[in-house]
Amino acid sequence: MMNKPHQITIKDIAKTLGISVSTVSRALKDHPDISEETKRQVQQLASSVNYRPNALALGLRKSKTNTIGIVIPEIVHHFFSSVISGIDDVAYATGYNTMICQTNENVEQEKSNIQAMIDSRIDGFLISISKDTTDFSHLKRLQDDGYPVVFFDRVCEDMPSHRVITDDFEGARIATRHLVSVGCRRIVHLTSAPSLVISRQRRSGYLMALRESGIEVDESLIFQADSRESVYAQVEKLVSMVPHIDGIFAINDMTAIAAIQVLQQNGFRVPEDVAVIGFGDGPMSEIVSPTLSTVEQKGYEIGAEAMRMLTRQIEGGVMNSDFETRMFTPVLHPRESTRR
Amino acid sequence: MMNKPHQITIKDIAKTLGISVSTVSRALKDHPDISEETKRQVQQLASSVNYRPNALALGLRKSKTNTIGIVIPEIVHHFFSSVISGIDDVAYATGYNTMICQTNENVEQEKSNIQAMIDSRIDGFLISISKDTTDFSHLKRLQDDGYPVVFFDRVCEDMPSHRVITDDFEGARIATRHLVSVGCRRIVHLTSAPSLVISRQRRSGYLMALRESGIEVDESLIFQADSRESVYAQVEKLVSMVPHIDGIFAINDMTAIAAIQVLQQNGFRVPEDVAVIGFGDGPMSEIVSPTLSTVEQKGYEIGAEAMRMLTRQIEGGVMNSDFETRMFTPVLHPRESTRR
Repeated sequence: MMNKPHQITIKDIAKTLGISVSTVSRALKDHPDISEETKRQVQQLASSVNYRPNALALGLRKSKTNTIGIVIPEIVHHFFSSVISGIDDVAYATGYNTMICQTNENVEQEKSNIQAMIDSRIDGFLISISKDTTDFSHLKRLQDDGYPVVFFDRVCEDMPSHRVITDDFEGARIATRHLVSVGCRRIVHLTSAPSLVISRQRRSGYLMALRESGIEVDESLIFQADSRESVYAQVEKLVSMVPHIDGIFAINDMTAIAAIQVLQQNGFRVPEDVAVIGFGDGPMSEIVSPTLSTVEQKGYEIGAEAMRMLTRQIEGGVMNSDFETRMFTPVLHPRESTRR
Repeated sequence: MMNKPHQITIKDIAKTLGISVSTVSRALKDHPDISEETKRQVQQLASSVNYRPNALALGLRKSKTNTIGIVIPEIVHHFFSSVISGIDDVAYATGYNTMICQTNENVEQEKSNIQAMIDSRIDGFLISISKDTTDFSHLKRLQDDGYPVVFFDRVCEDMPSHRVITDDFEGARIATRHLVSVGCRRIVHLTSAPSLVISRQRRSGYLMALRESGIEVDESLIFQADSRESVYAQVEKLVSMVPHIDGIFAINDMTAIAAIQVLQQNGFRVPEDVAVIGFGDGPMSEIVSPTLSTVEQKGYEIGAEAMRMLTRQIEGGVMNSDFETRMFTPVLHPRESTRR
């Protein structure tokens, strides 16, 4: 955050570069009439001197609505609710309203949500893409049209952008190392679709932790189960693995809880026979028996940081260069499901 | 729902009443230039002949954005997520986008959300008021200004309006009668602030069920505890009541789950010593041990019906008369916490 007094004016920037005030102003707004080279020069200088447009003047701009749009897959997930709390708190403190659209994991709905928000003349976007989104052209266009955008959690991999994400690799590594530290050696990993970045990252973190601990990787211990339903559909497979396994690292908390319940229903004890750890830390983890060990995704912090990054873009003029990525490392919460 | 073919035109209405087509049109849009008496005549006739404006023509109106605004207290509650799913499904099928604003239970944020939505030129509002909202003038103004509005779950008691709500009285009566049916006679009721309508309604349903079963009401068995924290803050009080009590009806599921865990931690068995039932039916109720009996609020159905009512208002012209109320009765889900 730039908390310095606003000493530098748009005139200073114009004078330094030997161009007109209106050119600087339009360059900062990413106006199409201004050349890329001039924009780059203006934006670099503005950034290096911490130039911030006068907030009052910005508020008087006809197009400023002081509303930002949040586009998320599904609000029913506790993680997204936490992110939104973080966004809302920063937004409220800085005088912004927020509006939320759900894509329901559907790319067509994502496009239509974004268009509705453009029509509503919102000042900027916070977006977490749907599972269904493999073509990013509508998102690229949004950036190219000069809208301030920050992606969070689910980001476009191949497109340079502002991002706030969870360090999934490190979180999975922390979770797996915790299982090793309580004596597990044969650790199952319940994963999700390999097309999802989080699946690949969490799997890599799991593999790294095993290697670091000198445990040989057994690919047969990795299989796809990422929901309560998918665990129940594979009860026999999971149960037949005990007692050859002594730990489970599940890609999310709901899957971990389902695995615990399936083991218990089949006469095994958690954590004595099999220790279990999840990923996410929703309210479920503390009310189940045994309580669930997990690594907590910093949803609130992710939302707050994404909103701060967006505010800097909106109030500092759109800078669709110098893209920043902020990663938040999950924190271990050891509970009863690994206590042994 | 009006599914008839559109036989009646605005010209027929004008002819019947002996006024101009433009007067009818403006009366249907609740235009301030038209007298209340004319509006009433036009709207009554339009309603009685099932007049519906041509949908295509409506879509061409400059102000139509095909976006509706949802104003809710907090999305983190499973009930509101369910309501939004219901709204979204109907909205998507009928070509509307939805935008959600959270009030965080703050009336100032509620006002500012509504203003932002007006500025975004949304077509209509679905609103559940914040706990903090005791002055309804901003909501009254919204209606008076001719915006289509449907309130759901938390409604303005003193203001005539379109409403879709849970039958809290009947839900509480069903829950309490279930406890009586499994043999409970000394039933604690954990309630919430008496200023909330749902508290008063659920308490009345509880009292009615006791009276119907010939059980004498003991006011000392009713006390305020509506969250996990408040149950834990009153552990001694609750535990000291056993074995003089044999049942608990909690105002929501989280409170019921906390009560079960407090009893278990103090050496009592659920349901053998005390049977427990909640209200709400979130995903928690099936993953705790014992699984929680509860009455399910029909969140999805409430959302879908609210959206259908709003669509009828938007597409049929605003009729801020003939207010409708739809009530959904919760459904009993008996599980292990009352199985005896």
